Order: sequence, then C-alpha cells, then structure tokens
Amino acid sequence: MPLPEKSLIAQIRRVAARHVFAPAQRREARHSRTTKNGDVVTGIGDDCAVLRLPSGHDLLTTTDFSLEGVHFRRAWHPPDSVGHRCLARGLSDIAAMGGEPIAAFLSLALPPKLPQSWVNGFMKGLLRLAGEFVVPLAGGDTAQSPSGVLADIVVLGSVPKGKAVSRSGARPGDRIYVTGDLGGSAAALDLLSLKRKKLAPKQFPKHFFPEPKIQQGQFLRSKNIASSMIDISDGLSTDLNHICEESGVGAELWAETIPRGTLGTTRKPVDLNFALHGGEDYELLFTARPQHCVPSSISGTSVTCIGEITRRKQVFVLKSGVRSRLKPHGWEHFRYQ
Amino acid sequence: MPLPEKSLIAQIRRVAARHVFAPAQRREARHSRTTKNGDVVTGIGDDCAVLRLPSGHDLLTTTDFSLEGVHFRRAWHPPDSVGHRCLARGLSDIAAMGGEPIAAFLSLALPPKLPQSWVNGFMKGLLRLAGEFVVPLAGGDTAQSPSGVLADIVVLGSVPKGKAVSRSGARPGDRIYVTGDLGGSAAALDLLSLKRKKLAPKQFPKHFFPEPKIQQGQFLRSKNIASSMIDISDGLSTDLNHICEESGVGAELWAETIPRGTLGTTRKPVDLNFALHGGEDYELLFTARPQHCVPSSISGTSVTCIGEITRRKQVFVLKSGVRSRLKPHGWEHFRYQ
Repeated sequence: MPLPEKSLIAQIRRVAARHVFAPAQRREARHSRTTKNGDVVTGIGDDCAVLRLPSGHDLLTTTDFSLEGVHFRRAWHPPDSVGHRCLARGLSDIAAMGGEPIAAFLSLALPPKLPQSWVNGFMKGLLRLAGEFVVPLAGGDTAQSPSGVLADIVVLGSVPKGKAVSRSGARPGDRIYVTGDLGGSAAALDLLSLKRKKLAPKQFPKHFFPEPKIQQGQFLRSKNIASSMIDISDGLSTDLNHICEESGVGAELWAETIPRGTLGTTRKPVDLNFALHGGEDYELLFTARPQHCVPSSISGTSVTCIGEITRRKQVFVLKSGVRSRLKPHGWEHFRYQ
Repeated sequence: MPLPEKSLIAQIRRVAARHVFAPAQRREARHSRTTKNGDVVTGIGDDCAVLRLPSGHDLLTTTDFSLEGVHFRRAWHPPDSVGHRCLARGLSDIAAMGGEPIAAFLSLALPPKLPQSWVNGFMKGLLRLAGEFVVPLAGGDTAQSPSGVLADIVVLGSVPKGKAVSRSGARPGDRIYVTGDLGGSAAALDLLSLKRKKLAPKQFPKHFFPEPKIQQGQFLRSKNIASSMIDISDGLSTDLNHICEESGVGAELWAETIPRGTLGTTRKPVDLNFALHGGEDYELLFTARPQHCVPSSISGTSVTCIGEITRRKQVFVLKSGVRSRLKPHGWEHFRYQ
C-alpha cells in the first residue's frame, strides 16, 4: 500500500506499538494465539493472516463500514464509543447466524491532523469489546484518509457445518421473537440530532456501547429454536422485511407486545416509532415454529414474542385492534447528516 | 447499516441488480456456487456469507483499502482500472502466501453525485479480474461516502494446512528471486504526476491492469521452493526489508541483475530507482535455499536471481562493484497527492 504521510505513519505506529502491530508481539502471536473456535496461526505482520478453523465448521464472514459523518460524528460520539460500535456491528452479524467469532480485521484510514488521543481512545473501545468476546485483532490495513476517520471492520466466525441460521427459514405460522428491547439507540440519536448537544455515554449505553448478542444467537442455533434470524441494525420494520423477503412470506406484528427501550437510564419508554423503525439496537430478531418452547430469557436477556409469520407477502402491524401496513422505514428517518 | 441517500441507493441497486446483489441470483447462489478451493454456501443477502473450506486447509485473509486521492485519482485512472487494481491488491497478497483465492468481499462507499457509468466501469474491471481467477464476490457493505470513492477489498483464500509461505523463513545464504520485472508501474505513475496528463491504459498495463501472480505463488509453495515470500506492493527496497525484518537477517542485492520494466509498451527500460523503490508491480519477491533448483520461468513469467540473504541485519546494494546501504524508500517517493 502507498505509505501515508510521515506524521500519520508515526501516529499509527504509536497506536500499533501499544496495541496491534508491535513486531515483538507478532512473533509471539504467530504460533500461539488460540481462541475458543479457531487458531490464529499467523497474525499481523505478513501478507495475509493465517487462521485454522475447527474441523466440521463453516466459515462466517461479514464486513461493515464505520465512516465519520455517515455512521458516527466525532462531535457526538467519544472515540471509545466509535471503536466499540465499529466492532459491535460485525460481531452482531456473527450473532445473527448463531456463530462464534474467530478474529477481526480492521482497515483504518485517518486524517493527517487527528489527535493521537482520539486514535488511542478508538482502539481502546474496540479492543475492550474484542477482549470481552475473546476475538483477536488479526490484521487489517492502514492509510491516510482523504476526509475524516474511515474504518471497515471484518469479522470472521465459525458455525457447525450446515447449521448457520439464515434469513430464509421463516414459514407461515412461525412466531416472531425479539431479544432485549428496541428503540433506545435511535431515541438517543434523535436527541443528539435535535438538541445538537453532547449526551453522557454512560446514560445512553444502548446507543454508545451496544452489546452484540453472541451467546443468545448461539443458544438459539444450538437448540434448533430459530427457524430464521437477523440482527436489528437497520430497524425492526426494515429487518423484518428482510426476513420476509428472503423467506418468501409476510408477517403481522402486535404493537402492544413490542418491548420498548427507555430513554437512556430513565424509566421513560421510547416512542413506538423508535422501536418500529430505529436502528442500531443490535438485538436479535428471529422466528420459531409455533410448537417450539422458547425461553423468556437467554443469558440474562429477555426474549419476547411480538407477532407471527403469515402466508400473505406483506408486513402488517396490529395496534389497538387496527391492522395497518408496516413499510420498511428504518434508517432513512434516523440520519447522521 | 444506516441507509445512504435515496439517489445513492438507487445507484447502488442498479449496479447490484446487474452484478452483485440481485435477489433472484441470491437464491440460486445460495447452495450452488463452488470454486476450486471452497464452497460459497450462502453468498450476498444474509448477515454473513457462509463459506466451506476444503478439509486440511488453513484460511488466508487480507484486507486492502483503495481510497480516491490516496491510492488512485479519478482524473488519472479509468474506472475499470480502479476496480481491477482494487481486487488485484488483495489477490496479490493471497499469491504471496502461495494460496488459492476463495472469495472476495467489497465494502464500497460512493459520493452522492458519482456518475452511474463510473460505478458500472469500476464493477466491470473488478468482476473481470474476479472471473479470471474464479473468485466469487460473496458480500460486502455499501454506504454513502463523505468524500470520494472509498473501497475496501477483503480476499479470503486457502492453503494446505501449515504450508502458507510467510515472510519469516529466509536464512543467510538463501538466494533472492523476483518474478517478472520491476518499476514499470511506478514509472507510469511518475509520468502521470509530472505531466499531469492522461495515459492510455493499454500502453501501460503494468500500472493500470497489474496481474497478480497466483499460479506462480502456488507453484513456489507446492514445490517447496520459496523459503520466504512477499508481493512487491510497496517497492523492492521496502518489501525486501519486510522479509529481512521478519526473518531476522540482512540482504545484498546485485543492481545489474534486477529485471527492470519498460516505460509502457516501449522498449526503454525504466530507471533503476523505479525498480528499487517503485511500488504496485505486484510481482513476487522470494528467497530459496542455495541448493534449490529454481526455474527461470513459471507459467510464462520470468524468474530472476537478484541477490542473497546475509547474516548481517542490513540491506546493501552492489552496483558497479560499489556496495552501499539500501534504505526502504518505497512509496514515500511515489505519491498520489
């Protein structure tokens, strides 16, 4: 790759020396790093990372941009939140397949005058979450950015052969479930954009530090509970539509049963529209055959039945006895720019 | 992911409908796409792609940015060249490990007013090269770009277990070899930046359409010839330094033996400095034990001995009988901005 400006090289090296690219750590990491579900045979410091998958497993791959001004704003999001959210997006995709994360790869382009403290904070947030899920950062790319901070995260995962939970397995009569509660992240974003003031991240953890539901996804896959699954990154209406489209079915949601998040750490539930259309909750949306026993809580996270899959290929929402079409709005209403 | 502006969505969908994300193709692709070295069980259209590796193989992973204004300029590079070069960078990393590419993933962010024809050209160049190496585009991400075209390519590959050729296997006494010739790409870039005029891509194929050396890398790995290997993306002086650093050795290059590229399709050899420091040739640089028989050509590409590995941990170049230090200059001298 073309080398970025010297000042930027120095900046990335400073981060690297502490966290990622240190040559001394490379040799140590080369033949030693073992995660629960795969070995990193060669990490950072070669043309490719070399990984060994457990036998009898399929490989999961997901990539997600985190672009300044599109997915986050430096004025709104502290750097450790940006790093956390960057990795959380990828981990959540692994969770949605019922998989186990193996390794992450970060492509990171930085503008020349970015303060070193910002980069340190970003890496701190990302690596803290990586540590929590035992996901080594096994490689990536660095470059000078033409504009703003640009990150692309790749997460690799594994799942027993043929057992990945897709979006396409929903059948008419299946019940629709969601983990946790919805709309908390979008409500915080709405506050940020309306008031254009800083929010205290600790008071709005659903927005600033969302938790990917890895354990829950694995449980739903290993117990053969989920017939289809997706993570709610774009909003319930949009993501349910993805399941319906891929499965060739429709759905009816019951508005009164949808678990609504609260506005930050208050007890005030968010407006139903945030729960229906707000994105970035990173909860799991899944379907299960009606005869299946679905637990009401998995690893401390609630599980709620919110509707059922129908034969007619449209999505409706039933509210106060009135049935109306639910179109996928999702992120178009909740924008960063 | 937050949805980009409607106009951009429409633009990406138009490309997608033809090339990548078409729902009709998704179902077809879901259980059908088989490449030489792995199955794409689930391609685009789910939270993750699901891939099946051949048994007894390790997984290779590489990610590379292609950012407008950093790695290419729209005024200099036609879109099919940008698409080709984007994927070539990733494939070349797989080649450098002696691997076989399995699948590619493209994260692509586009500015709102980019002409549709540019996106079509980009995808055409990328998919033409993907077709040549039978590498399915199995997923990725799309977004609105805050500035210019931003691409991040991920290439996954496979290699027989434990057989990946690393940068760290060079030993004192090993001979140093290079495939093809060097400096042709950087000389073209130099012309572009000095004259600030368009070049005819067909006359400068080494710069606009470099060929990753997949077959050559596999041959060198399968015949146990290469003791260490890297692709020349940053320039000979920089990439040889990587091998020396990772192997804990030094090197001596023989200037007169370094195969120099020509200026485009002319017969004029490029200046030695382009061959020593110019990047983006995507040839392979490798070392081999002195007793090994190294062919002078592999799959139609020449192989040339250009020096030897030494115990003393510095890199020298011998030119007209004079021995001088060769510092890694690489891309710092050949910049896009």
